[in-house]
Amino acid sequence: MPAVPILAFDIFGTVVDWHGSISREVQALYPQVDADAFALAWRQGYQPAMQRVRSGELGWTRIDDLHRMVLDEMLPRFGLAHLDDAARDHLNHVWHRLDPWPDTVRGLTRLKARHTICSLSNGNLGLLTNMAKRAGLPWDCVLSAEVFRAYKPDPRTYLGVADVFRVPPAQVMLVAAHQDDLAAARGCGLSTAYVERPMEFGAARPKDVSPDAANTLHARDLLDLADQLGC
Amino acid sequence: MPAVPILAFDIFGTVVDWHGSISREVQALYPQVDADAFALAWRQGYQPAMQRVRSGELGWTRIDDLHRMVLDEMLPRFGLAHLDDAARDHLNHVWHRLDPWPDTVRGLTRLKARHTICSLSNGNLGLLTNMAKRAGLPWDCVLSAEVFRAYKPDPRTYLGVADVFRVPPAQVMLVAAHQDDLAAARGCGLSTAYVERPMEFGAARPKDVSPDAANTLHARDLLDLADQLGC
Repeated sequence: MPAVPILAFDIFGTVVDWHGSISREVQALYPQVDADAFALAWRQGYQPAMQRVRSGELGWTRIDDLHRMVLDEMLPRFGLAHLDDAARDHLNHVWHRLDPWPDTVRGLTRLKARHTICSLSNGNLGLLTNMAKRAGLPWDCVLSAEVFRAYKPDPRTYLGVADVFRVPPAQVMLVAAHQDDLAAARGCGLSTAYVERPMEFGAARPKDVSPDAANTLHARDLLDLADQLGC
Repeated sequence: MPAVPILAFDIFGTVVDWHGSISREVQALYPQVDADAFALAWRQGYQPAMQRVRSGELGWTRIDDLHRMVLDEMLPRFGLAHLDDAARDHLNHVWHRLDPWPDTVRGLTRLKARHTICSLSNGNLGLLTNMAKRAGLPWDCVLSAEVFRAYKPDPRTYLGVADVFRVPPAQVMLVAAHQDDLAAARGCGLSTAYVERPMEFGAARPKDVSPDAANTLHARDLLDLADQLGC
């Protein structure tokens, strides 16, 4: 058994390319819209929407519903106030249809040979399952904030994974492209691996992917992570 | 999309052969023990143990822990009172190592091509994930009583699957080798498929596998179910 048998993956930005996927779909559906700005605005509404749940202003709400609330709010700004419920629902499900990064499926498949691989996302179970089925993500188990009834960075999510597999926290490694997620996991005693996703916000907007020495590993992508873990 | 997009599978007895797997492993580890009686006794302790949780006598308890409680209680009757904690723990994990029925992996793989397939078991997530990884069960999503914090036949489990995938209950089909499980699912509006597992309790103890006309489908095994669903 490897020293860290459980690998838990952040999803949006780490495993799948939300910006590229949403931009492409919006571009195809509504060519008049600034698809790049649309994708960014939608994603920017995500943390404040979750904050309304964390603060108790909203009861437990799935990401599908938070995505829809943000969408409804922003459509008028993009000249799409006229979309009916079915069109909004279809568009909202683009989050179930996000494309993996080019290395994702091969990387996960290699990692799965020696590790138990699961998602650990704020996305809901139905979203993550539909995404995995469409994109061919070979999870051993789909875990979500929905299972723990708390959103990352709540400790219940990170410690919840260790509890599900009944291992000490250090035997779970969170794999994510976001240093704040990793820092919260480390605070709970998890191992951490940062994955560079410089194009998460689009090719025009490269992000800082500097290493943080506090992480257990720093990987260029999931193939590099598989190399480093000897998979 | 098929009329019933979601197939939720009972596990113990339906997808995996608990009696044969436990008998074989006990036989190999402790040849002096009546392995057939041992497997039956362990399984017989399962419903009463869950009943202690349902009644509120015990707080939420995972099946791993209930299996261990039953095991500790029965070991002296089988001359195994001397087993230490590590040996008991290893034996208890036999429930993570149950072998699938011969048709299971091929059947699930065919069904997965047109349906979303998930477990719906009273087994805990870690148990189901370890089992799937070892046996090659290709779940789209591992669902468990642990997610819904209620054991079957509690309606929260059956309706929980419909809720996760946000479909009407009739668009979920419970697949099980136990008529009581199927009856409870029907009571919640789910579709149901009975699967014959005449040797669930061992070859010496064939069980009644008569059809119940109340089920949506009656299948010899998972390959027959795939045939009937056009997969």
